[in-house]
Parts: sequence; structure tokens; C-alpha cells
Amino acid sequence: MYILIILAHPEKGSFNHAIAKTAKESIQSNGYKVIFHDLYAERFDPILPYTEIPRDAKIDPVIGKHCNELSQAQGIVIVHPNWWGQPPAILKGWIDRVIRAGVAYKFLEGDLGEGVPAGLLKAEKALVFNTSNTPDKREQEVFGDPLETLWKNCIFGLCGLKNFKRKNYGVVVNSTPEEREKWLEDVKQIVDYIFPKSPDDF
Amino acid sequence: MYILIILAHPEKGSFNHAIAKTAKESIQSNGYKVIFHDLYAERFDPILPYTEIPRDAKIDPVIGKHCNELSQAQGIVIVHPNWWGQPPAILKGWIDRVIRAGVAYKFLEGDLGEGVPAGLLKAEKALVFNTSNTPDKREQEVFGDPLETLWKNCIFGLCGLKNFKRKNYGVVVNSTPEEREKWLEDVKQIVDYIFPKSPDDF
Repeated sequence: MYILIILAHPEKGSFNHAIAKTAKESIQSNGYKVIFHDLYAERFDPILPYTEIPRDAKIDPVIGKHCNELSQAQGIVIVHPNWWGQPPAILKGWIDRVIRAGVAYKFLEGDLGEGVPAGLLKAEKALVFNTSNTPDKREQEVFGDPLETLWKNCIFGLCGLKNFKRKNYGVVVNSTPEEREKWLEDVKQIVDYIFPKSPDDF
Repeated sequence: MYILIILAHPEKGSFNHAIAKTAKESIQSNGYKVIFHDLYAERFDPILPYTEIPRDAKIDPVIGKHCNELSQAQGIVIVHPNWWGQPPAILKGWIDRVIRAGVAYKFLEGDLGEGVPAGLLKAEKALVFNTSNTPDKREQEVFGDPLETLWKNCIFGLCGLKNFKRKNYGVVVNSTPEEREKWLEDVKQIVDYIFPKSPDDF
């Protein structure tokens, strides 16, 4: 039993790294094991080749390991900056390659891929932390905050995972150390709420 | 003067390739030059490194060439499948690396990146062709069709390009050759409308 944390930011000293570290430590101190992937540090290859698309394709062992970890995780935490209303390419590639049919969802008999799939994830809870340099009002009114529907509906919803929470922190670029400290405290509180200690830990 | 076409699909025989080929031939036969990139065939590297983020960063020559082509194009055509309501990772990386500040948009004096940028693209028209295996009704109602706001608002809108057209074809996976033929005819008609012949060509 473990929580899977996926981080996608190119800079070790980034606020995204601080969020991921805070989430990891909070989850661990609540009694869970954690599997942690810093996709940039691991040089994850995001290019889905055509040969990997068929449902019975031979899968690269690194991808196979990611698939097993995803399918068996008790909970999932994703941390990434908002780049163009989307995740960075390296995380988009993790989505493309790891969230596979047969791993995270399945199509019903006779469905070539045009139907409504059934979820396969063991995880019941997913948590997404984002950072942004766009003020909330502009994100909502001009861009429609696409990250919300991407993670909630297109990805986790399709995989049958309904217990979903997302929190965005920003504007980061001109934030003060005090604001960032408060945001990390907020990360800890959300994690404690979503992945609480078990009664036996008290 | 040329139209830039960017294609992102891993399979040479895909319907996306057929769309891109039809668009290219129609644009050329209307008298325009075309610069064409098949990102998979060119093994485009989609990973934006941290060192490339600063506005005065030293840019990889391949990325620099892409940036010049984007900034000077008379029009832009993008062709890709809908993967999780988003482009494939290889195209997301083209967005991350090529649509740079100073190339496609600029922040105003004193803006660290939190403000509303001004567009820099020479192009006045952008055209996005997508393919999908999700029926239109489900795409709109369950997923909110995020590709529309991603391309129209988050990307081209931010770069000041307002003359935007997007067309999705699907469901592809169980389509007939006759349907695909009709879709390619539709591609040609849209291209003829957006990038018409000049009066001198008649």
C-alpha cells in the first residue's frame, strides 16, 4: 500500500519541488508509504511510439514499472506548473504512455475505443497541485482553467476515479517567502485531509 | 511568405498524416509556400530544460530555427489527435519550447510574467485540425472540449492571434473510407476558405 507522487518541473529549487517534498513528508508522517517520481530528474521519455499503442503491445520495462505502480497505488498526487493551461510535455508523455488501457481503464467487449470505458485504478483519491503565474480571475475568465477539466474529467474521471481535489498556487513569480510558506502549510493541510492518519496512529 | 504546418502523430499511415498532406497540397495549390514539420519523423525533443526558460537564454539551434519559422509565418496550421483532451507530448513540447516570450508574445516593461502579454506573431490566421475517438456529444458534455480553449485562448489568443479556426474529425477508429474521404474534402474546403488564392491566380 503506497501513495504515488509524480512531479514535473525542470528546476530542483522550484516551488513545485517544495510542494512535492511537503506532500511527501506529510503523507509519510501520516503513516503511508510513498513512491516518488521526479520525471525531469529521471529523464522520463515522454514520446509514445506507435508500436506502444495497441492494447497487447510490448511495453518498455521502465513504462511497465510505471504502469504497475499507477495501477496498484492507494492514492495519486501530481505536482506541476501550469504551462499553457496544460502540464509540461514530460508529464503529458507520462499520461500518454502510463495511463494505458488495461492499466487504468478498459473498454467494454467489442469497443474499438469509441465508447465509455470502465475504470481500473485501485486508487480512490487523486490530488493535483499546480503553480501558476496567471491571476485566478484571468485564468477563469480568459482561459477557462482547462487544467481542472483535464485532470478531473478527461483523465481521472475517465479512469473512474471520482474523489478528486486540485489546488493551484499563484501568482508564484512575484510571491513573497511568507506567501510561499503559507502555501506549503496549505499543502500540508490538504494532504492531511485527503490522506489522514489511521485511527491506530493516535 | 509561407504557411507553417506542424504535424504530431506517430504513424506515417495515420489519418492525421492524410489531413496534413491534404492541407499542404491545398495551401500550395493556392499559391503559398509551405514549411512543414512532422515532429515524430524529425524526432523533435519536447523537454524544455530549465536553462532555456530565461528570456535571454541561449537557445538550441534546432529550437531557434523553429522560433524563427513560427514568428515569421504568414499563417499556422496544426494537426494532431486528441489525446486526453490535449496534444501528444511531442507537440506539447513544441509549444513549451517554441512559443517563447520574445518570439510569439512579449511581456510589458516591468512585468515578471504575471501580466497580460502583447502578441508578436506575424501570422494573422491559425487553423487546427484534430482527430478523436470520442463522440462530439460526450466530448462537449463530459470533458468540455478543452482543446478548443487550449488552442484558441491559452495559446493563440495569448499571442494576439484572433483569427482562429479549429475542426475536429471523428469518431476515427470505426470510420469508413467514404467518411474519411469526405473529411479530407472538408479539410480542403476549410483550407481554401482560410488561405484562399490571391486574385492574381485567377
